[in-house]
Amino acid sequence: MKKKLQNVILKEMRYSKLFGKTVRDFPKEEVSTNAKLLIKAGFIDKLMAGSFTLLPLGFRVKEKIEQIVREEMDKTGANEMLMPLLHPKEIWNETGRWETAKEVMYQFKKENKEYALSFTHEEIVLDIIRKKISTYKDLPVKVYHFSTKFRDEPRAKSGILRGREFLMKDLYSVHLTAEDLDKYYWEVADAYLRVFKRLGFEVKIVEAAGGVFTDSHTHEFQVLCDQGEDTIYYCDCGSSCDCNFAENKEITTVKTGDKCPKCNDCKIKESKAIEVGNIFKFGTVYSEKMGVYVMDSSGKKVTVHFASYGIGITRLIGTLVELFHDDKGIIWPKVVAPYRMHLIGLQGAKADDLYKKLQDEGIEVLYDDRDVSAGQKFADADLIGIPVRLVISEKTAGKVEWKERSSDKTELISVEEAIKRPKA
Amino acid sequence: MKKKLQNVILKEMRYSKLFGKTVRDFPKEEVSTNAKLLIKAGFIDKLMAGSFTLLPLGFRVKEKIEQIVREEMDKTGANEMLMPLLHPKEIWNETGRWETAKEVMYQFKKENKEYALSFTHEEIVLDIIRKKISTYKDLPVKVYHFSTKFRDEPRAKSGILRGREFLMKDLYSVHLTAEDLDKYYWEVADAYLRVFKRLGFEVKIVEAAGGVFTDSHTHEFQVLCDQGEDTIYYCDCGSSCDCNFAENKEITTVKTGDKCPKCNDCKIKESKAIEVGNIFKFGTVYSEKMGVYVMDSSGKKVTVHFASYGIGITRLIGTLVELFHDDKGIIWPKVVAPYRMHLIGLQGAKADDLYKKLQDEGIEVLYDDRDVSAGQKFADADLIGIPVRLVISEKTAGKVEWKERSSDKTELISVEEAIKRPKA
Repeated sequence: MKKKLQNVILKEMRYSKLFGKTVRDFPKEEVSTNAKLLIKAGFIDKLMAGSFTLLPLGFRVKEKIEQIVREEMDKTGANEMLMPLLHPKEIWNETGRWETAKEVMYQFKKENKEYALSFTHEEIVLDIIRKKISTYKDLPVKVYHFSTKFRDEPRAKSGILRGREFLMKDLYSVHLTAEDLDKYYWEVADAYLRVFKRLGFEVKIVEAAGGVFTDSHTHEFQVLCDQGEDTIYYCDCGSSCDCNFAENKEITTVKTGDKCPKCNDCKIKESKAIEVGNIFKFGTVYSEKMGVYVMDSSGKKVTVHFASYGIGITRLIGTLVELFHDDKGIIWPKVVAPYRMHLIGLQGAKADDLYKKLQDEGIEVLYDDRDVSAGQKFADADLIGIPVRLVISEKTAGKVEWKERSSDKTELISVEEAIKRPKA
Repeated sequence: MKKKLQNVILKEMRYSKLFGKTVRDFPKEEVSTNAKLLIKAGFIDKLMAGSFTLLPLGFRVKEKIEQIVREEMDKTGANEMLMPLLHPKEIWNETGRWETAKEVMYQFKKENKEYALSFTHEEIVLDIIRKKISTYKDLPVKVYHFSTKFRDEPRAKSGILRGREFLMKDLYSVHLTAEDLDKYYWEVADAYLRVFKRLGFEVKIVEAAGGVFTDSHTHEFQVLCDQGEDTIYYCDCGSSCDCNFAENKEITTVKTGDKCPKCNDCKIKESKAIEVGNIFKFGTVYSEKMGVYVMDSSGKKVTVHFASYGIGITRLIGTLVELFHDDKGIIWPKVVAPYRMHLIGLQGAKADDLYKKLQDEGIEVLYDDRDVSAGQKFADADLIGIPVRLVISEKTAGKVEWKERSSDKTELISVEEAIKRPKA
């Protein structure tokens, strides 16, 4: 049986027909590397500060990231659904967040009715859950969705790392006991680590403040990156230590060079980091305010335990670019690249033929069929950053040139080999 | 090679673990059949008038409808992308729609900046396009997205047929000439007809008024249905006539029984109908206002021709239910059913085994593994409306009972046959 390729979106794509081609110059007003490269390479377009269109190439990257996240969420037994973005004031009043989160929420009135836009979904999901559960037998509940979040960000200068409007995967769980919540909480943390590992990130689980979500500490998933907006302090655990101490600057009392307060052995290191995920253990705080109860096995009414878990999907696109690029452009990891192959045709008919063969084999190809110079095609391929570049030209004499984006080495291989290799 | 099943979302699903089970009573405040059945069967939950959560079952139906629409849009050469939902006032001012569409748009101010929520995306897509195109060689542009629309609907009483917040596929195209636009416009109309045919609808293309979109007439895709909010008049073309005359009541001058003004032969019929799609030929009106130009082959600056094309995705879910149900519940067409099979296990181990086999074969199954009565399981299966019900019990004696939702006939077949049949 043929080996099945994972996470493939097979659509016909000739570069001549792609909306959102590379542009000549870097956008002048952008300061972040991710916005500069993503705009220049044709992945995104800016509508206003902190708000971007995902052009067809960027949309494909989003789809691939979501599929990875979806697979890992499903493994924890969670159900995918979709909640609304426009919310009535009344529900936000139940927890008091209509007032406490006023700064970050978009709130407005129309025809004497007051609304807020989704900056998160705790209140909304608990409203559904309280209608749907009545006994302990209905627990646990584990639900998630991919949806849009709106947050009024005064400093939206980090490209798609921080948006007024952005995509998020948020998962919510409700449990009978604190113990059951705790168990699932760390299962999701593991699922998050698997997601980030698949994306090629080095991630720390960092203790942090809860913001408008909770007075307790929460756990952030931070990717070490000089372009990050967060500063974290962590135990520089070598092979001899796995204490995994890590705290966000906001809450920590340690500093660089201190002895780790947890293992009392290694030294503390400082790093800039990008927060790509965040998990919150709320316990019964929200459920109590919203009246989310079940009957336990003895018929007693008990307040449920609640947690939420977020991953910033558009932020992940930005993080990938911050981490994986060089001076020529983006270098997408294979698992999220918009296409697996970038075929450059300098000899029309033969390239057409290879394009068709690759498509037939279920291999995703972006085929640059334009009537422009070889130099421009090569530069665009480097900028766009698809993992493998294939060239067919008179020079390749019936063979195909294979070059990986992350290497300078080129190889002449047979057409058969070019089809076989991506499936290996 | 094994036959590949189309449009399959393969996820583990035991009904005991599903969030959003059937509820005992019809929701009292709902008047529409679609809302009553979808809420009772656990497909949707209402947040407020005109705003619904798609629970896991409803989410799957949405995914399947979107995939059908996506395939047909892709066939026309369109590129999928994703545009933002929160828009700056400035862009809506360019066409004057900040004022003319005030009633339907959600508009608000925060920190001295004025915003609108997406009630449609013409202005947004033209803003992107004008940045990206410069010569006639960049045309045509054909882009679409699936996204959320917000419209302030005073009469949100038709369940998910009319929402304040709803999902839509909207496609936009830009062309050098009116002729090229016209050609693509009817290509998309054909693609729409293919979509609706795959969903099992009888659809009329109806001439109608353009509302806040255009002063010209537009074409609506209307599904004949007594529960529709629209009234249409159409030529009762039999096999002898294919004049396809059809007009919305808003604009027509004909009435029931009139002679058709187009073929001058058949009689005019009246019907209630649900508008499931709408296509708009704007010509150069919007492009002129927004300054969307290209250089033609002679170096002359010309205004581009523009059209947009919408299909209401959540509305399609409601339409399907209005058309396909009986007094026991929903009867989903195979192509959009949340699952292909509803397996009822009344003999634990054997049902577990069949469930696993079906999953391994790539067949979607909802497995009712609950410890409740056979009667309740049967009633829930009828309510949920999955095309095929399979029962394994002591009575089936090693075989499987196969029953289609649309028929009363039951059959005893072998396990092998139960696996083979859905692939036939």
